[in-house]
Amino acid sequence: MTPWSVPFRLCAVFCALLFLGLQALAQSAPLPSWNDGPAKQAILDFVRETTDPASPKFVPAAERIATFDQDGTLWVEQPMYTQVIFCLAKVPAVVAKRPDLKDVEPFRTVLSGNRAAIAKLSTADLEKIVAATLSGMSVEAFRAEAEAWIATAKHPKFGRLYTDLTYLPMQEVLSHLRANGYKTFIVTGGGQDFVRAYAQRVYGIPPEQVVGTAGGTKFGYGKDGRPVLTKEPRLLLNDNFAGKPEGIHLMIGRRPNAAFGNSTGDRQMLEYTRAGTGARLAMLVLHDDATREFAYGPAQGLPDSKVGTFPQPLFDEAKAKGWTVISMKSDWKRIFAFEP
Amino acid sequence: MTPWSVPFRLCAVFCALLFLGLQALAQSAPLPSWNDGPAKQAILDFVRETTDPASPKFVPAAERIATFDQDGTLWVEQPMYTQVIFCLAKVPAVVAKRPDLKDVEPFRTVLSGNRAAIAKLSTADLEKIVAATLSGMSVEAFRAEAEAWIATAKHPKFGRLYTDLTYLPMQEVLSHLRANGYKTFIVTGGGQDFVRAYAQRVYGIPPEQVVGTAGGTKFGYGKDGRPVLTKEPRLLLNDNFAGKPEGIHLMIGRRPNAAFGNSTGDRQMLEYTRAGTGARLAMLVLHDDATREFAYGPAQGLPDSKVGTFPQPLFDEAKAKGWTVISMKSDWKRIFAFEP
Repeated sequence: MTPWSVPFRLCAVFCALLFLGLQALAQSAPLPSWNDGPAKQAILDFVRETTDPASPKFVPAAERIATFDQDGTLWVEQPMYTQVIFCLAKVPAVVAKRPDLKDVEPFRTVLSGNRAAIAKLSTADLEKIVAATLSGMSVEAFRAEAEAWIATAKHPKFGRLYTDLTYLPMQEVLSHLRANGYKTFIVTGGGQDFVRAYAQRVYGIPPEQVVGTAGGTKFGYGKDGRPVLTKEPRLLLNDNFAGKPEGIHLMIGRRPNAAFGNSTGDRQMLEYTRAGTGARLAMLVLHDDATREFAYGPAQGLPDSKVGTFPQPLFDEAKAKGWTVISMKSDWKRIFAFEP
Repeated sequence: MTPWSVPFRLCAVFCALLFLGLQALAQSAPLPSWNDGPAKQAILDFVRETTDPASPKFVPAAERIATFDQDGTLWVEQPMYTQVIFCLAKVPAVVAKRPDLKDVEPFRTVLSGNRAAIAKLSTADLEKIVAATLSGMSVEAFRAEAEAWIATAKHPKFGRLYTDLTYLPMQEVLSHLRANGYKTFIVTGGGQDFVRAYAQRVYGIPPEQVVGTAGGTKFGYGKDGRPVLTKEPRLLLNDNFAGKPEGIHLMIGRRPNAAFGNSTGDRQMLEYTRAGTGARLAMLVLHDDATREFAYGPAQGLPDSKVGTFPQPLFDEAKAKGWTVISMKSDWKRIFAFEP
C-alpha cells in the first residue's frame, strides 16, 4: 500500500482540527459569569455526573429534565412581580368595559394611583385583580396584549425593560444544561399564559415547557362561526408551594433531575426533586446584593419581603438536605448582561 | 492554480455520494404501508409545504406541532377502551382494600364476571370505576401497576398484547412528522398517567408530550418523611370534545399544525387545528375494515358503536371543511406490524 498522499493527510488533519475546535467551542468555559466556588462546582459536577456514560449516575439524554422558578430565580422579582404590574396596568381598560367595578375595592384603590395604598393591597386583593384582568378575552388576544406590554414596560429601579433583567448567570445555566441534553422547563407561580408570551424569546423555552399558575379556558364559536378559546377566571392550577410538584406531574409527568428556586414557594419542588434516586441538584438563589440588585430575606439577617421570602427554616433545610445556596453577591461576577 | 489532485476529487465525489445516499435514505418511500391516494398525498403535501423554506406556508422547525388522538386513531379501541379493561381488572384488588364497595353498584356487577352485564355498564358507572381504581396510590406505584399490566394483557379478538395493536401506518406518520422536525403529542380522552406509562416505548412519545384526561394529585410526606404525590379522584381535565382544545392550550400552549382523530370526541380539536392560518392538516380515521380490524360508525352505513362514534354529521363536516378521511380498508396496505 502506498502511504496517504499529502492532500489526503492535510485533509485529515484539517478535519481533526475542525472537530477538536468545535468540541472546544462547545465546552469552553461554561458559566463564565460565575465565580469559582461550591455553587458553580455543584452545577458542573451534576452535569458531568449525569451525562458521562461511564458515570454510575448517568441519565439517558431523553430523560434529562431541569425546572426553574422564574420570579427571583431567572429575573428580578422586586419591588413587585412583573405580572402583577402588568395586571395593575390593565385595570383602567377592564373598568372601562365594566364600569360596575369602578367604585369596588380593590379596583378603586388601583384607579386612585396612590402608590403607597397599592403597595399595601393584600394577596386576596391582588388575586381579584389578576382574575379580572387575565380573563374574558381569547387566548390570542391575551397573548398579543402581553407581548405588547412586555416589549415596552420598564422597571422602576433600573429603567430598563423587564426582559433585560434576567440573570446572566442563570441564562448560562439554562444554556449549559441544554447543551448537555437537558430539557429546561419554567415552573412558575406566575401566570402560565403570561410567561409563555415571552419565554421563547427571552429564555429559549417554548410554550409547552412553561408550567405556571393556570386558569381554565372555554372552547366555543365566535360570531363568524370560528372556534375560539376564551380565558376564564376559574383556577385550574395554583403553581406555588405543593402546587409546584403537582403541576410538574400534571404537565411534565416525571421528576426533575435538577430544580432551581429562591423562596418558600419553591420548597416542595426542591424536596420532590431531591427525593429521586441518582444525582439530583437543588439550588436556591439568595438575594444578598443590595448594590447590584436587591437584598432581602431574613436568612442572612436581611429584612423580609412580601415576595420571595427566604426565611431561616428554608436556609436550615437547604443545609440539612444538601441543597446549594447561590449567593448573588459572591457567586456571580455579573448579574445582568447590560453590566459593563 | 493547479487542478485538484485525483485523491481530492475522489474524496469530493465520495462525500457527495454519501450525502445524497443519506438524503435518499431519509426520504426514501415515507409511509410505505399506505396505498397511494388522497389521504397519503395530503400528509406528504402538508409536510412538504410546511418544511420547505421556499414555501409560503413554511413553519419554523421550533413551531411544528402535531397532535394525535390515541384510541381508534393510533391503536384499536374495540370492543372497549384498553384503559377501561385495565380498570375493570383492578376492581377485585380495590374491593379487597375497601370491602364496603363489594355490594355497591357498579362494583358488584364487575365482580360478578357477567360479561354481558359488564358490557352494558353506563358511562357514569365506568367513571365511578375509573375514579376508584386510578386514585389512592402514589404516582410511582400507579405507573408500576400500569406498566406491569400492559406488558402482559392481551386483546380478546387478536390474542396479542395491546401494544402490538398500534396501527403501522400511523406509526409511520409519527415517524415521518418527527423526521421533518415536528413535535408529536398524544391528546387522548384516556387517562394521562396510564398512556404515559407506555407512550415512550410504544410511540416514541415522552411523558411530557402526552395530554390526557387528568386527575389531581396531592403532595404530602410519607411515614419516612419523604415527599410523595398521591393520585386523587378529583378531575382536573376531561380531555374529550371541547376539553381537547382546552387541554392543548393548557399543556402545549399553541395551536397544532396537524391533528388526527377518529370520532366526535376529536371534533373540536380538528376544528381548532384547521382554524389556524397557513397549512393545517386535519384527518379522521374511518373504521371500515371488518376483516383486518373492525367496522363501525354510521358514516358509511356501518352499525354505530359505544365507542369511537363517527356519525354522518362528522362525515359531512369533514367534507365541508376539507378534512381528510382515512379509509382503513382502502388507504392502508397493512394495518398491524405483525401482518405478513
